[in-house]
Amino acid sequence: MTVLGVIGYGHWGPNLVRNFMAHPEARVAYISDRDPAMRDKAALACPGVAVVADPGAIFQDPAVEAVVVSTPVRTHFPLALEALAHGKHVWVEKPLAATVAEAERLVSEADKRGLILHVDHTLAYSGAVRKLKELYEAKVLGDLYYYDSTRLNLGLFQEDVDVLWDLAVHDLAVLFHLLPVRPLAVSAQGVAHFAGRPVNTAFLTLFYPRNFIAHINASWLSPVKVRRFILAGSAKMAVYDDMEPAEKLRLYDKGIDCPVEGGPGLSLGYRTGEILSPEYSSQEPLALEVEHFLHSLAQKIPTITDGRIGLSTIRVLESATRSLALSGAPQEL
Amino acid sequence: MTVLGVIGYGHWGPNLVRNFMAHPEARVAYISDRDPAMRDKAALACPGVAVVADPGAIFQDPAVEAVVVSTPVRTHFPLALEALAHGKHVWVEKPLAATVAEAERLVSEADKRGLILHVDHTLAYSGAVRKLKELYEAKVLGDLYYYDSTRLNLGLFQEDVDVLWDLAVHDLAVLFHLLPVRPLAVSAQGVAHFAGRPVNTAFLTLFYPRNFIAHINASWLSPVKVRRFILAGSAKMAVYDDMEPAEKLRLYDKGIDCPVEGGPGLSLGYRTGEILSPEYSSQEPLALEVEHFLHSLAQKIPTITDGRIGLSTIRVLESATRSLALSGAPQEL
Amino acid sequence: MTVLGVIGYGHWGPNLVRNFMAHPEARVAYISDRDPAMRDKAALACPGVAVVADPGAIFQDPAVEAVVVSTPVRTHFPLALEALAHGKHVWVEKPLAATVAEAERLVSEADKRGLILHVDHTLAYSGAVRKLKELYEAKVLGDLYYYDSTRLNLGLFQEDVDVLWDLAVHDLAVLFHLLPVRPLAVSAQGVAHFAGRPVNTAFLTLFYPRNFIAHINASWLSPVKVRRFILAGSAKMAVYDDMEPAEKLRLYDKGIDCPVEGGPGLSLGYRTGEILSPEYSSQEPLALEVEHFLHSLAQKIPTITDGRIGLSTIRVLESATRSLALSGAPQEL
Amino acid sequence: MTVLGVIGYGHWGPNLVRNFMAHPEARVAYISDRDPAMRDKAALACPGVAVVADPGAIFQDPAVEAVVVSTPVRTHFPLALEALAHGKHVWVEKPLAATVAEAERLVSEADKRGLILHVDHTLAYSGAVRKLKELYEAKVLGDLYYYDSTRLNLGLFQEDVDVLWDLAVHDLAVLFHLLPVRPLAVSAQGVAHFAGRPVNTAFLTLFYPRNFIAHINASWLSPVKVRRFILAGSAKMAVYDDMEPAEKLRLYDKGIDCPVEGGPGLSLGYRTGEILSPEYSSQEPLALEVEHFLHSLAQKIPTITDGRIGLSTIRVLESATRSLALSGAPQEL
Repeated sequence: MTVLGVIGYGHWGPNLVRNFMAHPEARVAYISDRDPAMRDKAALACPGVAVVADPGAIFQDPAVEAVVVSTPVRTHFPLALEALAHGKHVWVEKPLAATVAEAERLVSEADKRGLILHVDHTLAYSGAVRKLKELYEAKVLGDLYYYDSTRLNLGLFQEDVDVLWDLAVHDLAVLFHLLPVRPLAVSAQGVAHFAGRPVNTAFLTLFYPRNFIAHINASWLSPVKVRRFILAGSAKMAVYDDMEPAEKLRLYDKGIDCPVEGGPGLSLGYRTGEILSPEYSSQEPLALEVEHFLHSLAQKIPTITDGRIGLSTIRVLESATRSLALSGAPQEL
Repeated sequence: MTVLGVIGYGHWGPNLVRNFMAHPEARVAYISDRDPAMRDKAALACPGVAVVADPGAIFQDPAVEAVVVSTPVRTHFPLALEALAHGKHVWVEKPLAATVAEAERLVSEADKRGLILHVDHTLAYSGAVRKLKELYEAKVLGDLYYYDSTRLNLGLFQEDVDVLWDLAVHDLAVLFHLLPVRPLAVSAQGVAHFAGRPVNTAFLTLFYPRNFIAHINASWLSPVKVRRFILAGSAKMAVYDDMEPAEKLRLYDKGIDCPVEGGPGLSLGYRTGEILSPEYSSQEPLALEVEHFLHSLAQKIPTITDGRIGLSTIRVLESATRSLALSGAPQEL
Repeated sequence: MTVLGVIGYGHWGPNLVRNFMAHPEARVAYISDRDPAMRDKAALACPGVAVVADPGAIFQDPAVEAVVVSTPVRTHFPLALEALAHGKHVWVEKPLAATVAEAERLVSEADKRGLILHVDHTLAYSGAVRKLKELYEAKVLGDLYYYDSTRLNLGLFQEDVDVLWDLAVHDLAVLFHLLPVRPLAVSAQGVAHFAGRPVNTAFLTLFYPRNFIAHINASWLSPVKVRRFILAGSAKMAVYDDMEPAEKLRLYDKGIDCPVEGGPGLSLGYRTGEILSPEYSSQEPLALEVEHFLHSLAQKIPTITDGRIGLSTIRVLESATRSLALSGAPQEL
Repeated sequence: MTVLGVIGYGHWGPNLVRNFMAHPEARVAYISDRDPAMRDKAALACPGVAVVADPGAIFQDPAVEAVVVSTPVRTHFPLALEALAHGKHVWVEKPLAATVAEAERLVSEADKRGLILHVDHTLAYSGAVRKLKELYEAKVLGDLYYYDSTRLNLGLFQEDVDVLWDLAVHDLAVLFHLLPVRPLAVSAQGVAHFAGRPVNTAFLTLFYPRNFIAHINASWLSPVKVRRFILAGSAKMAVYDDMEPAEKLRLYDKGIDCPVEGGPGLSLGYRTGEILSPEYSSQEPLALEVEHFLHSLAQKIPTITDGRIGLSTIRVLESATRSLALSGAPQEL
């Protein structure tokens, strides 16, 4: 039985609490939130849990083994650092921290103390993404051509991070988790339409070795909700659409056959074969992530989206912010 | 009755011929194509039309008033120039030409001789785009935030132009036709996966005054076909989806209300109102374009997608090609 | 504060418990279930609630004002009757009972004792259906032509009722709730593919006065999930699609204009106007139903889907079962 | 080279003419239409073809080997009969005729004279339906559970046949072509909302041996266009959606496994496996049907949708009309 304290009961917090409560090997002992309205909501929904204003009680209680940080991004660093300092394992909502320096410090603190530092990149735990990783590793996709993601919706504007830090971070985690290759440079463009607010619509391109390219289109200012990426390879092309109730993942046996290297003319052959929607687990990704986290704690092994993956995403985001200020001038990574 | 000659009976040519033949005020007198197979196809489908290998016959025949050029891009310039030199009005498939220099020359030749130079940017003639222009001009959209377009499909790889010149050109024509604002700079990224072939997957961002931004995602290497753009304004957001059999245009009464200028906190108000799919003409866009072209000839006035619009798109494309080679380094326009 | 006991923590029970717990004016005092696994699940998720095997404790506790029955259909009648006998208000999952005789008895018992008898026809509380009722009552739809519903999915086969009693019942409740007209006769067809199991795929047609007709296509044996109905009127046609994440309701300004009464020839005029997706509340329907139930208790007024509506649906279902056994022979209502 | 005359240049006629003209082994010698506007249209589009008002010229010309009848249903019988009487092969638009008696007479006349009588059930020639037939015959679907089709759109109201004769006829042809089993009885319901006009919205159920059932929902009065059928079997379930630009056919590896015969409880096992969209020819179905018709003429063998298939569909439709008048009372076939 792992005893936990959850800091932050806002947008995502209730989902975290519900999933930890439903797990027979976890016990949520505390929920803390600075906002009295959130505390009232937590008290109604979770009658047996101590609901507090100050997270200090969580840090002080030696029975608490792990702390879940689900608060605004600028507070990730101090809260996670204090939890580590008190010898607690940590689960931090994405993005891990607000700067590369903060993220590096958290990774090294966790390493030093032998504690688990987990970043909540939930997408990596969806049944469809796990199936995609399995297919990629079985070399079903062939050589990779590109990754192209679109993440659009209306709101929720974040206060302290821009839309790339909020939405593109999902794709970066998937890319670092899924593929062994590492990006060489980044170019980003974007715009902030409201004075004093972060960039709400942005585009990010990652350049990789061997002609692989990744592109992410992210906006908080779209009338339609889109959550879709394509991972195109020479043998198969995968489309992941999170808005599909079922069949989130499709594998297209389409592509270009026998391109004549360097030859002139329209002699490329198109392959338009069958489409397969493979079976995958439809379990709630967060339930699976909770299971994986508890298992990692028990086994003392890193999670698949640990602090190192979190740090890699922050490195890209910090460079993308620089490129964006320069209208897309590429930044080496 | 306008007498025409059509040069090129490949991919798009049969559509042009069919629409000109169905118009009671036009007569297709010639079809020329270098490929005997295409000539056989033309002869079967159009028993009453002279089918020739060499376009020379078209230029020489004084009865021909207008020449339609539907051939590979690199031949647009010489064929259109020769047609103008023979005093014919010209309809050229998009893009107008392969370089800014060529496009400028064609525009000045047509001007000098008082001839119509029309570029076949068919999208501008679709009922839904014309309705969108009407709505924009009636100030229904409010202040513009962004234009975001996605044009994906598998093939048809062009031989002599890359995917931006082939697909993004549609969006550039719509932007120049729809909006009075002009872009300041362009950033583009892309990749050519097959040696000796043009870039097949690319991303283009246009920077405009007053925080308006346009982005185009184009690929010939996608397993799914997508033809969609969003034009988001402060009052309404329009989504145009060409793959919808009906309801191609939707107007969302969604957005951000009363953003507190410079104020901190999550105090933006979201507006999630009704969605309207306005009625628009479902006539075939090409039929309407043919009608408009014939009318422009009769009235001796430029078409709405004339050589000047065609030249503007070429200017952007040439700069985008430079930016793409520099991994997105922005280029002023 | 209304104190409740919930009987049955199977498929739908957890949703009921969650919504009652989240309401500040309700307190779930008991959850009962015969299955120890369901009791363990309830105990984990609801630490402060008494979880019991036998519902007797709920009936006996005078503090309990209302009983929620979420059990297999054959047990609705005895449990609801016993709850009423103990002076409790009752919330029963749909369908109200297994026979017309049972449903009539429950309605008369509730009437006699001045207790609320509520049937959980959740669909009637969805924001989109409430908006549709509002539009219908404002005469926006014009004269009604037909109602056409499709409810398909794979499983969950019910043990003690067939697919019409399980799925078509949603439409019947909507029809009785939405429209003042009452059906005159019913015809139904269907088939049971597995020996000893109820009919899993069936079709039901209701005949109404003045050429209005309703049709329901229901199956537990479909590879795709569909939840959609059309309510077509002379002025507007509404389409409700529950599988759409947003825009569940669309209003089409389409139809037939000026049909020449009795005239020959193809002289009907088609009207293909704009399409509107009106704004409606996106609150969880069950949360709204809970709110409405608690309000009805406080005000001592029937809910909008009370025992009488429940009884009307059972009358149709019983006749449909007869028609189905006769390959569609119509049954008067 | 087969010489043809086409009678009727209305809604479907131009497609027939275009496809016959594009075939190198066919020559359209005549087009006849009573309407001068249609003749003008034909003359513009087909400069080399004789366009006449009276079909008599076609019957009289001994060079004409085959006559294509694309006229209102009530004229199918006299025109097809006259064509056969003149020794011509006949292609008739669906439905073959207006009554069983007429259809029987045409079949026997064609038989007597050794002429081909082809009914234009185009759906049977679509690449996706041919692939489905191939899969069915390879026993990929397993035992058949049901066929469930939905054909909805707004207009085109037919003048002389109702919506079942116009739309359900497509499904009947597919059922007779695809499956060896024959229906035992039919039940139909429907309504005519406009005085003097045929039934515009109707539902038809076919009862087959061994618990197979077929259902067709057809309407000319729907705001949305739907063209979809499910053919569910014990091993695979197929969904054919004609509105999908690609992937019209999907094969779901979903169903019920190991149903315990007669056993109680919820012990059915659900199988939710992968989904496959098989590759199939995307050639225009009508082009393929033209090819098949010409080949049948050359080989003197019946087409796959010959007069006998056409007659079978008429038998069902005539009985359905009787059932419809009796509110669904089943009629034996």
